[in-house]
Parts: sequence; structure tokens; C-alpha cells
Amino acid sequence: MDLTETEISNNPVFEGKLIDLKVETVSLPNGKTATREIVKHPDASAAIAINSEKKMLLVKQWREPIKQVTLEIPAGLIDPTDNSPLDAMKRELNEEGGYKAEYWEKVTEFYPSPGFSDEKLYLFYCDTLTKLEEEDKRPLDEDEFLTQEWYSLDELKQLIAQGKIVDGKTVTAIMFWENMLLTGQQNND
Amino acid sequence: MDLTETEISNNPVFEGKLIDLKVETVSLPNGKTATREIVKHPDASAAIAINSEKKMLLVKQWREPIKQVTLEIPAGLIDPTDNSPLDAMKRELNEEGGYKAEYWEKVTEFYPSPGFSDEKLYLFYCDTLTKLEEEDKRPLDEDEFLTQEWYSLDELKQLIAQGKIVDGKTVTAIMFWENMLLTGQQNND
Repeated sequence: MDLTETEISNNPVFEGKLIDLKVETVSLPNGKTATREIVKHPDASAAIAINSEKKMLLVKQWREPIKQVTLEIPAGLIDPTDNSPLDAMKRELNEEGGYKAEYWEKVTEFYPSPGFSDEKLYLFYCDTLTKLEEEDKRPLDEDEFLTQEWYSLDELKQLIAQGKIVDGKTVTAIMFWENMLLTGQQNND
Repeated sequence: MDLTETEISNNPVFEGKLIDLKVETVSLPNGKTATREIVKHPDASAAIAINSEKKMLLVKQWREPIKQVTLEIPAGLIDPTDNSPLDAMKRELNEEGGYKAEYWEKVTEFYPSPGFSDEKLYLFYCDTLTKLEEEDKRPLDEDEFLTQEWYSLDELKQLIAQGKIVDGKTVTAIMFWENMLLTGQQNND
């Protein structure tokens, strides 16, 4: 069965600072038509960052769409000036964490909400962290405010069970890290 | 540090069939203002559905925002007529899978994209599946077309590594299932 939908027309509704919205009319596999509301969003990078005490770096920040403070892994949009998703993540680890990491590994990439958005997320793992000197630190975006916390795997699993970690990419990252530890795939350098 | 942002004003930009878009002006922790582009999206349920051969049910469907066919766990929006996220998932497993399940367990809940959307996803685990009789099956939505496939954990991990599973909730679900198997938490009834 050919599941392909074919774009017939495309109505741009909104162009914002972060996202654009369009309404597409598509032709369905049965020849009928339907509309699809689509949010264009820049791609992003995120990282599982583990320190020498085997704790994961999380950042606390306000998320206005859900009107609450969340605990999330460090992450950020990929800028046109970044050479790659990995470069973007190294920059974000500097800006949001004040750290650089010796060891980096690509974990996976996925679309958080392919039903309505084209946002793609690149997930990395890093460890062997060192705190940056003041002069090497880059500033946060001017509308960005956050604080840092470090948690062990046991604490992270409890925070998920208690409903205190509710960010999708962070839940995914914790499960990947636990499975890396359970199957002995973590970096032991 | 108080990270709270306070809504000052709220400009509705678009009201669609699936999503609404608004632009909020907020007061930042430092007293300055910023705008936040926010997509309102209904909550959804999704399920890790495992058959007696220890294979997971995936559905193949076209996703117009990323213009490709995806492999995803069964999932769907929670309707006003559903009594709960679990009820919504039972309905979706009927509609998208043609199955009912004896054993159900809540796995977790999370926001796939809290940076720009309020969508919340409830993830369940189920097994002890039975194929529904024709007369008990509910129809798919009229603009919904999909086919079913079943995969073992090893196959699923390969599909992720090959970039053939790119849906965030499905990656999360596979990690949770692997973790349940590694830690011996699966249902053995």
C-alpha cells in the first residue's frame, strides 16, 4: 500500500522568531484531499553530559507553553553559524553548562513530534568534563535564564517516577544512559 | 533564583483543526519582556504493545511535516469522549491495530516539545493481545492510512541505528522496553 500524501497547495499562516506555521492541502492515498497544519521549527542538539561522579547535568528553566519550571538535559537550537549538530552541542554545553567535554559520541537522532512539526533533535553523549575558565565562557541568550543540577541515575529514575522530569528528550536520554550502563557500553576511559 | 516568566499579554494567531498558535508577551526574571510562540495541541496516548512472540507492534504512516513514511508505536489524540488517557489508548489499539490487550501498565508521561508546545503524551505498556473480531473493530479516521508491522527488540535497535525509526516517542518506547527486559520488569503472566 502506497501511503504517500502529495502536497497540492500550501498556505503560509505565520512567520515567527522561532517557528513558522503553514496549512497544506494534500492528496490522500485514496485520492481524497485533507489539510495538514504544520509547524516549521529549527533543528536542535541535546546531550547526556556525565561528570566524574557519574552524575548527569540537568538545567532548570521556565517553559511558558506548559507554564512550569522543567529539569532538562542541556540543549539548544542549531544556529546557521554552527558547522554541525555536534558543534552546536559543544557551544550549548559551554553556554548552558560552562563545561567542555573530552569524549563525545552520537547517540541517535529523532523527530520529537512528527505529527505536526519538522523539528529534528540530535542526541549526544559526553563525559570527561572540565569546567571552563571565566574567559572561555559564552553568554546565554538574553531571554534565557537557567540553573544547573547534577543527578545520579537512581535519582533521575525517581524524578521520572515522581513526575518531576516531564521533558521528552530528557526521559529518552535517561533511558539511553541506563541502558548503556546496564549493557556495559559506557565510556570507561 | 526564581525562573518564573509571567504572561503579560496573549495574541491568538491561528485556530486550526488540530493546533492553535498564540504569541505571548512575558515578563522575564530580570524584569525585561520577551515573546513566546506557543502551539496548543491536544494530549495524546501511545503504547508499547507486545505480542506472544515478544515482538512490538509498529504502524507505518505518512507524516507530511517531514514528508516521509514513519514507523511508530500505535498512538492517537485523546478525544473529549475518552474517559481517560488509558481509555483513549485502548480505542487506538482497536482502530490502528485491530487488537485488544489483557494486561495494561502505565509507563510514563512527558511533553515531547515543551519549548514551543503544550502537547502531553501518556505512554502505556500492554501485552496478552488478542485479535478483534471484524464486528468489534472500529474504523480509522477518514484521513488516516496505515499498515502494521511487528519487530523484535534486536530488530528495533537495528532500525534505530539505521535511521529507519525516527519518531521520538517510538525511540523512547523501545528504550523503555529494552530497560524492562534488562531489569526483568516485564509482565510474565
